[in-house]
Amino acid sequence: MTRIKAIVEYEGTHYHGFQRQPGLVTIESTLLQALEKVTGESTRLWAAGRTDAGVHARGQVIAFDTNSTIPPERFAPALNSVLPSDIRMLQSEEVRLDFHPRYHARAKLYRYLLYRQEAGRTFYRNLSYYYPYALDEGAIKEAAAHFVGTHDFRAFCASGSQVKDFIRTIFECKVNQKPPFLWFDIRGDGFLYNMVRIIVGTLLAVGNHRIRPAEIEQLLRLGRRDKVGSTVPASGLYLMKVFY
Amino acid sequence: MTRIKAIVEYEGTHYHGFQRQPGLVTIESTLLQALEKVTGESTRLWAAGRTDAGVHARGQVIAFDTNSTIPPERFAPALNSVLPSDIRMLQSEEVRLDFHPRYHARAKLYRYLLYRQEAGRTFYRNLSYYYPYALDEGAIKEAAAHFVGTHDFRAFCASGSQVKDFIRTIFECKVNQKPPFLWFDIRGDGFLYNMVRIIVGTLLAVGNHRIRPAEIEQLLRLGRRDKVGSTVPASGLYLMKVFY
Repeated sequence: MTRIKAIVEYEGTHYHGFQRQPGLVTIESTLLQALEKVTGESTRLWAAGRTDAGVHARGQVIAFDTNSTIPPERFAPALNSVLPSDIRMLQSEEVRLDFHPRYHARAKLYRYLLYRQEAGRTFYRNLSYYYPYALDEGAIKEAAAHFVGTHDFRAFCASGSQVKDFIRTIFECKVNQKPPFLWFDIRGDGFLYNMVRIIVGTLLAVGNHRIRPAEIEQLLRLGRRDKVGSTVPASGLYLMKVFY
Repeated sequence: MTRIKAIVEYEGTHYHGFQRQPGLVTIESTLLQALEKVTGESTRLWAAGRTDAGVHARGQVIAFDTNSTIPPERFAPALNSVLPSDIRMLQSEEVRLDFHPRYHARAKLYRYLLYRQEAGRTFYRNLSYYYPYALDEGAIKEAAAHFVGTHDFRAFCASGSQVKDFIRTIFECKVNQKPPFLWFDIRGDGFLYNMVRIIVGTLLAVGNHRIRPAEIEQLLRLGRRDKVGSTVPASGLYLMKVFY
């Protein structure tokens, strides 16, 4: 038996998220069907991040076991010949049998993309969050820096989450722009449910002068979901890269 | 009665082209339905270019007549509130009652977009033509210049066209790149059926060294469809702007 690690890119628009759900088309179920077509084997897989419906990936990492004779690096072209065009396997290789895409990840990089002008928005409607309103970028930059470090992120987690440990470390939280785009890059050792989308919602509230940059530390300490920004839409979110 | 001129942007992926066809969803039929919802009037419209299925527009120009009391510039926001998100009206204004978007157009600018790398292609699968192969850009530039001017373009027209006059003038034919994109901008006084897509197919054949740049003049004189390049896919084509 061989364990294969693969990098997968997908547009999440037309899927009910990554994770398998009975009766729904998900990224996972589509990958498993493609694997079965190519290898004749029914298998299971593990992923670095279980992205939500409408969330995209440029560098999702998955792993699966196989007894197939397909050379490890040939899984990518083989899968692409049967996968729908909104899911592509960019690379595949053999890894140790104990490799786990999520447990072994040291960090993940997420990007959140805003589209800032009316002209052309049609083409990015599923690939970004249309946000033509004025933003104070200086204030956003200042606020973003406060997220870096090890904090209790319970205020930045969708309510109803089953998690007990809300401590996470953010290594990088940056804003960049190249009109008509503005994007946030957030790299951390792990993320709570909706954490990136709530951090971005909070940074937009800072950009609108509804929250002051200096308040971020206080909001982290306070730990109340209702005091921070709203959850921005899934369409702007990309899982960019997983670091091992 | 007032005649309204409007600039419309759309992703053509999910439409059977611009022009109304019985039983099919087209850009025109969708715009007419939206107009009827907003004004209560059943009307007709004229467009600068009847784009094919899968072809996009950043600056399609349409005109229609109305007895509605909606102020001319308010048609754009009113229509957008009822149009699907892959069609947007960017601007609307009153024009003279004899204005015709096609007959009065002095020139049209089309763009053809290539996507040149594997990473990220998923997101541009409907918005470009995936073309990762090597291209000799110097040769393409040289060949492109030969299209500029007034020529008989019968070799660059889909066969079966009803047109009698194949003479058209190209004002500009340029190639640009910004990886992972490479695009062609072609501006002319009018275009035959599939003309832009066949010119681009021919320029790609030049980029592949299957046709020499100096052969373009000869191919124009020869006038044989079977001697020039193939028709590139609709997904890369954009009607960018109409000049009056």
